[in-house]
Amino acid sequence: MTDATVPPSDSDSTRERIVAAAKAEFSRYGIAGARVDRIAKEARTSKERVYAHFRSKEALYAFVAGRELAAVADATRMDPADLPGYAGRLFDYFIDQPEHFRMIGWGRLELADAAQSHLDDPTRVALAHKLDQLRRAQDAGHLDPAWDPIDVIALVNQIATTWLSQIELRSFEVEQARDPAVSARRAAVVEAVQRLFPRAN
Amino acid sequence: MTDATVPPSDSDSTRERIVAAAKAEFSRYGIAGARVDRIAKEARTSKERVYAHFRSKEALYAFVAGRELAAVADATRMDPADLPGYAGRLFDYFIDQPEHFRMIGWGRLELADAAQSHLDDPTRVALAHKLDQLRRAQDAGHLDPAWDPIDVIALVNQIATTWLSQIELRSFEVEQARDPAVSARRAAVVEAVQRLFPRAN
Repeated sequence: MTDATVPPSDSDSTRERIVAAAKAEFSRYGIAGARVDRIAKEARTSKERVYAHFRSKEALYAFVAGRELAAVADATRMDPADLPGYAGRLFDYFIDQPEHFRMIGWGRLELADAAQSHLDDPTRVALAHKLDQLRRAQDAGHLDPAWDPIDVIALVNQIATTWLSQIELRSFEVEQARDPAVSARRAAVVEAVQRLFPRAN
Repeated sequence: MTDATVPPSDSDSTRERIVAAAKAEFSRYGIAGARVDRIAKEARTSKERVYAHFRSKEALYAFVAGRELAAVADATRMDPADLPGYAGRLFDYFIDQPEHFRMIGWGRLELADAAQSHLDDPTRVALAHKLDQLRRAQDAGHLDPAWDPIDVIALVNQIATTWLSQIELRSFEVEQARDPAVSARRAAVVEAVQRLFPRAN
């Protein structure tokens, strides 16, 4: 509890407000479309203070995106012996925080030519660790060794975000006055991962 | 051959040049980022002529996106008795035409609040037809009836585009100096769909 009772310095809390405002702004407008003056206003600070904390709009995006990737990994904890459960947690996380998914989506389009540059060190380390976990699960007989571990990660991520990506299909369902039924969509995602990468018994 | 020998009217060929230029422009910059004057210049016409053919930049995007969706459906032909083969064709299509995937991606982010509006009539009809085909395959015992057909379409689309979406993972592989090995990625995608929705024998 000691840490929590130390009030953050003014500069720290300004920085946090900037990051929160930037997350909302990037999620809504993308990187090119984001405006630093709107971020500053929302964070109750000045454009100059934003640039004092982050040297550019692009650096601010990279920071926010990196932190978000760490947050999702932390909240969902990949378990190589239970990938369907992990897919369910990813699904829940993104349903809860659709702005996270949008923010990453803009980066994928806008930074496509510089894809390497938006993998920061913690992300790289986390990814290498996941690949290791999967390899060990393959060695232990919990996961079919025929899969390349990076395909496993890619497929699970991709399947978990199916209904956030395929928005044309979602809107078709809405038009047909079908219940969007989040729980049914979640069950389909978990079942798909279970058929691909069955839980270890 | 008769049709092909009829030269297109000047207006038709201008329209086609506008559409081609718009496709490239939207793919690169998105909808908000696209500039009609750049499209006009690339199409060797004027901004006024672009607006004579398409009432707005948004209408031009909707037209180009609708035509692209029809083109991919046409080129890949969903076969409900062989969904892994269909996934392979989708994979090949997008590898061949990454700008198609980017163009749709921008629309998904930029038109999220108006998702209904970018499903045009031909897309709606094509989608209803696919759902019908899948239901018949379920009745005929070629496809597990436990799946909601719209989940089948969503999952196959999503899995086929795994390596276009998960660009952080792709860039990680490049960093690790691993061969990107398109054929291995394709095999993983086809195998994933085969495990979910096995080919009918």
